[in-house]
Amino acid sequence: MKKTLLFTLLCLVFIQVAIAQTLESPNGELVMQFSLQEDGTPVYSLTYKDQAVIKPSKLGFDLRDEKDLLSGFSISETEESTFDQTWEPVWGEEKEIRNHYNELEVNLLQEETDRNLIIRFRLFNDGLGFRYEFPQQGSLGHFVIKEERSQFAMAGDHTAFWIPGDYDTQEYDYTESKLSEIRETMETAITANLSQTSFSNTGVQTSLMMKTEDGLYINLHEAALIDYATMHLNLDDEKMIFESWLTPDVNGDKGYLVAPTVSPWRTIIVSDDARDILASKMTYNLNEPIAIEDPSWIKPMKYIGVWWEMITGKSSWNYTDEFKAVKLGETDFEAAEPNGKHAANTEHVKEYIDFAAEHGFDGVLVEGWNIGWEDWFGHSKDYVFDFVTPYPDFDVAEIQNYAESKGVKMIMHHETSSSVRNYERHLDTAYQFMNKYGYPAVKSGYVGDILPRGENHYSQWLVNHYQYALEKAADYKIMVNAHEAVRPTGIARTYPNLIGNESARGTEYQSFGGSKPNHVTVLPFTRLLGGPMDYTPGIFEMDLSKLNPENDSKVNSTLANQLGLYVTMYSPLQMAADLPENYMRFPDAFQFIKDVAVDWDKSVYLEAEPGDYVTVARKEKGSTNWFVGNVNGNDARTARINFDFLDKGKTYIATIYSDAPSAHYRMNPQAYEIKKYRVDSRSKLSQLSAPGGGFAISIKEADKTDAKDLKKL
Amino acid sequence: MKKTLLFTLLCLVFIQVAIAQTLESPNGELVMQFSLQEDGTPVYSLTYKDQAVIKPSKLGFDLRDEKDLLSGFSISETEESTFDQTWEPVWGEEKEIRNHYNELEVNLLQEETDRNLIIRFRLFNDGLGFRYEFPQQGSLGHFVIKEERSQFAMAGDHTAFWIPGDYDTQEYDYTESKLSEIRETMETAITANLSQTSFSNTGVQTSLMMKTEDGLYINLHEAALIDYATMHLNLDDEKMIFESWLTPDVNGDKGYLVAPTVSPWRTIIVSDDARDILASKMTYNLNEPIAIEDPSWIKPMKYIGVWWEMITGKSSWNYTDEFKAVKLGETDFEAAEPNGKHAANTEHVKEYIDFAAEHGFDGVLVEGWNIGWEDWFGHSKDYVFDFVTPYPDFDVAEIQNYAESKGVKMIMHHETSSSVRNYERHLDTAYQFMNKYGYPAVKSGYVGDILPRGENHYSQWLVNHYQYALEKAADYKIMVNAHEAVRPTGIARTYPNLIGNESARGTEYQSFGGSKPNHVTVLPFTRLLGGPMDYTPGIFEMDLSKLNPENDSKVNSTLANQLGLYVTMYSPLQMAADLPENYMRFPDAFQFIKDVAVDWDKSVYLEAEPGDYVTVARKEKGSTNWFVGNVNGNDARTARINFDFLDKGKTYIATIYSDAPSAHYRMNPQAYEIKKYRVDSRSKLSQLSAPGGGFAISIKEADKTDAKDLKKL
Repeated sequence: MKKTLLFTLLCLVFIQVAIAQTLESPNGELVMQFSLQEDGTPVYSLTYKDQAVIKPSKLGFDLRDEKDLLSGFSISETEESTFDQTWEPVWGEEKEIRNHYNELEVNLLQEETDRNLIIRFRLFNDGLGFRYEFPQQGSLGHFVIKEERSQFAMAGDHTAFWIPGDYDTQEYDYTESKLSEIRETMETAITANLSQTSFSNTGVQTSLMMKTEDGLYINLHEAALIDYATMHLNLDDEKMIFESWLTPDVNGDKGYLVAPTVSPWRTIIVSDDARDILASKMTYNLNEPIAIEDPSWIKPMKYIGVWWEMITGKSSWNYTDEFKAVKLGETDFEAAEPNGKHAANTEHVKEYIDFAAEHGFDGVLVEGWNIGWEDWFGHSKDYVFDFVTPYPDFDVAEIQNYAESKGVKMIMHHETSSSVRNYERHLDTAYQFMNKYGYPAVKSGYVGDILPRGENHYSQWLVNHYQYALEKAADYKIMVNAHEAVRPTGIARTYPNLIGNESARGTEYQSFGGSKPNHVTVLPFTRLLGGPMDYTPGIFEMDLSKLNPENDSKVNSTLANQLGLYVTMYSPLQMAADLPENYMRFPDAFQFIKDVAVDWDKSVYLEAEPGDYVTVARKEKGSTNWFVGNVNGNDARTARINFDFLDKGKTYIATIYSDAPSAHYRMNPQAYEIKKYRVDSRSKLSQLSAPGGGFAISIKEADKTDAKDLKKL
Repeated sequence: MKKTLLFTLLCLVFIQVAIAQTLESPNGELVMQFSLQEDGTPVYSLTYKDQAVIKPSKLGFDLRDEKDLLSGFSISETEESTFDQTWEPVWGEEKEIRNHYNELEVNLLQEETDRNLIIRFRLFNDGLGFRYEFPQQGSLGHFVIKEERSQFAMAGDHTAFWIPGDYDTQEYDYTESKLSEIRETMETAITANLSQTSFSNTGVQTSLMMKTEDGLYINLHEAALIDYATMHLNLDDEKMIFESWLTPDVNGDKGYLVAPTVSPWRTIIVSDDARDILASKMTYNLNEPIAIEDPSWIKPMKYIGVWWEMITGKSSWNYTDEFKAVKLGETDFEAAEPNGKHAANTEHVKEYIDFAAEHGFDGVLVEGWNIGWEDWFGHSKDYVFDFVTPYPDFDVAEIQNYAESKGVKMIMHHETSSSVRNYERHLDTAYQFMNKYGYPAVKSGYVGDILPRGENHYSQWLVNHYQYALEKAADYKIMVNAHEAVRPTGIARTYPNLIGNESARGTEYQSFGGSKPNHVTVLPFTRLLGGPMDYTPGIFEMDLSKLNPENDSKVNSTLANQLGLYVTMYSPLQMAADLPENYMRFPDAFQFIKDVAVDWDKSVYLEAEPGDYVTVARKEKGSTNWFVGNVNGNDARTARINFDFLDKGKTYIATIYSDAPSAHYRMNPQAYEIKKYRVDSRSKLSQLSAPGGGFAISIKEADKTDAKDLKKL
């Protein structure tokens, strides 16, 4: 009798295990449930304060060549644990980051095939991360993913801020629509790019930001994307279920894996306060700790560059217009006729160096310095650049010496034209060249279709490449700012020499027809969650015909908005992108760019609503200075903030750079005001931001004498 | 009146130019005619001693994205010139090679597109070479070849020795058939390979050997294949016209070119004496002169290797059978259970080194020394080898020291498993590792399907890679012997560190079911024209079940044939492929392998008929020694040779290693005889070779005393 009871109890326990496992976040507000369906299909769901975030959603894989990993599973073991640790990033928005989660490891056995699969869940106060793990085993070695089938079942027809799913570009404006409207809006959302491949009219990219009718903010993304295909989300817009859609290789396969291995983390960040999404460090926390033993050479930089004049068409990257095509090592550039528009010449670069030195910039980027730009894209050209040979008018050593004498660092530029084999072949010599001439950082670029042909910017082959270039750069103590590469997924925690990425629609599009005025109020909710963006803010002249009469593009932003970006768009690498002469026309406004920090001890998100506004206060690293930034969406709005983030009892001087009342991103973008106030932790501010506008505040501690003539806010 | 006449004359000249240009070989026996058809299509034809070799055949290209380069041409200029120069190869069959040809450069203009195309013909006494040249011009920069349309119109239904056209392998037995029979024989001709892609049932590979009913020998091939897709030939078997069929990339495109550039040379070697085909150096002559300033480090080698025991299945490349898959850097090989069959272990390798030292071999190759062989092919695995990490039982430094103390060089092995990106990433460190440990040469391998996926072994992408690996090896003073790479096209003239290639069906197939007994009588007419082959001869034990009871394969060759191969299969890199213990069973026959040279001052082809027999005499470099080799086809035959290649008035001792009368490749392969004679330049020899048999003769100068007891031949 006793024995029978014990047996029954055991069975109950076992069935309990098989039916549902519950995991709570440390604060109890998030609850994840895991279970197996009757057919052995893994299913999870997620609630936040008892509201459904993810309805029961299936997990698994379709495999090529062998039985799928979708059903027929039983639970062989589960394990719960708690983790709580604080780590210090090399650079970042915060001095310290707390990594605190409860974990559930579910060991699954697919009996029919004797294959083991682990699903690991980590539940933080700000969201859920889960990944697949394929342990070493006798019945699973090499396998090919036909598709990952991770579902994210939405609880309603949420509002989403999305860009079209694409294997090759993220450089789209965001569309705000109901999930049910994605299909009908897709065609409009897909705008032209030099390399693009859409796949579904309900396919969108991550990070995907959503808002529910009940005021929940939900973000879907991934973390630690290493040697795996980039995840997109494809929506079943009848059931409102997103499913993972990996970027295929040339054969349509979605990943070649070798056990033991793991997938990236799939992340669901959730809160009823939009500011929590911006403050979330979950994506970083799901990455491995730093892999660089001594990261002391990794240093945030504020920089200018010989760049915007080419982007606007005022100058050219190429040196000559004489040739239909050029061949490195064969074309005689010394004998070629210069086109007279080549910006990367020694004399002109020295002017930039002078400007950088005078105004305290750390670095100068120069694009178009190396031979090959005459036919650099659109030709599927293999040997397009060698990354070490300058044009005849660019004297590397002289420039380097000059910069060094002025205390300025030169920033290297490696456009690869997506000829990735060629780049990898030259990587060592290119990095050695940088070391030799003292370049601490490189901006790399992947414009155009990928070589090897048939591969995509976001397929496993390329994800593997970007990581290879990054890790090799670390060997050479080089910082990387990769453009057109895959969007970051928190990898900078492990390799903090990844100080920037583009991987979204940056300022350059303001010269290619313009971006939506509220674009910059969405990016912090999406693109920036995985890592900093080299957005290249700081444009003061919005009418680009003033730079190049043939460019009729307008920058859809006010000048004050451009200043706000230095705080709202967190990055350890910040450019002042406009031409020196445009800054000299507005020296008082330019002062903010000179003053603003690029590394922080603390960040406080004061106001946030995706598509509408973001206001953030940040405390400069190792300083008592604070900086506040606001960017505003399509409609005028008054920000109401209080300064209780300041140390109590201290007095500060706040310099507010704001839109003038008449400002408007299109009609009157350069109308700004600068006002100074005395502030303390009890101060409050109501500040108007124009459509496409914003403001920036620098706050410096002051003794009372300095501040006594200033009006108190 | 006078003016009119002059005008008429000029017109005649012009028309003459437009109608036909004639080019003669230096000796006048070959005549090439070039003309434009009425529609401006370039056409050429070739005769040898007034017999048609190539009937009028069209030249040109189909291009992707733009108008073809097939017709609409006019001749803008032609230029004739003569070239006569002698050069000394670093290694080879001859001490000096004469490069003597008459050249016709035809400058064509396609008026409709304003594009210029040059066709350059070089007519030697042994054949014709022509190539396309795309000069720098304003109307042609980057272009994509859809297909090269070079025709080779045959004058009859010749007998051909062919292997199936294939984008990934040349490892086929030759089929002898009429051209008209290729179609019906194709299916049988295509045998299994680990990576293979056929494309047409009348598609064959070059070098293609043919014989006409009138006794002309015609060989079609290419020279100087650099950064261009490998050419196959597709037969229109109604008209008997071969047309070039390039190896496509993943998209089906056949080449991405940037003007100025040139195509490889298309070659037609022709003679009424089969021996002239073997002696032809035209393929080398069409390549550029040596690009290595000081080639003194390039040295021919005779070597043994830890190889045949794995090929036969007696031993294994991999160290352990414990894992379904391994991951470099993660799998703990130190802790793994050895499978007990791993041949590349320190102790065993030392035995090979001892054997090499004792018998005067220059080098020892060891395969399977580095981690990764557990799952090395068939999985499309990217990071399959790192080329520098040995298995726990292989002590690189100890082996290197031991070899050095014995005066033996170790030969490196780099199997890439066709994961080409991975190889390129590791190339510098792998070559540096070789330099560090004193390895002078590397055998590289490309087994299995290519990564990047969708590319083929012979597409432009890969041709570019093999050249990259070769040129980088030269930077490190490393000699390369590339297996499964594209067949050579004389590139070793320019980069003589390419001391070997496989790129054909080598001895290994004798362990995989066997090759045709007459295979080695065809290879000198085909595969060897472009460069030496690491055929790995010297198998003494033909019954492979003696090595591995599970291997029922038989080597289709007599032992004497194996000896003959050291002379007939010219290579500066010659292996003695069998196990040391098998050589010790036949020390008298083994003596020939020990004695035979690997570099030559002179070669005299005594007898030759493709598919039937090859007999050649070669004079050792810097020595008075001669060696003669004969390989025989399917039927017994008596070779009748005279020794007039010897210096007049000198006496020599000839040691003849021949088939015993009872020998037969299948029934009695190890029956051989060794006889010594006194010979001089008047000596003659009638020597029987068995089916699949052959003989080898070493001839050493002797004073009359030494030779006096020997019978005179």
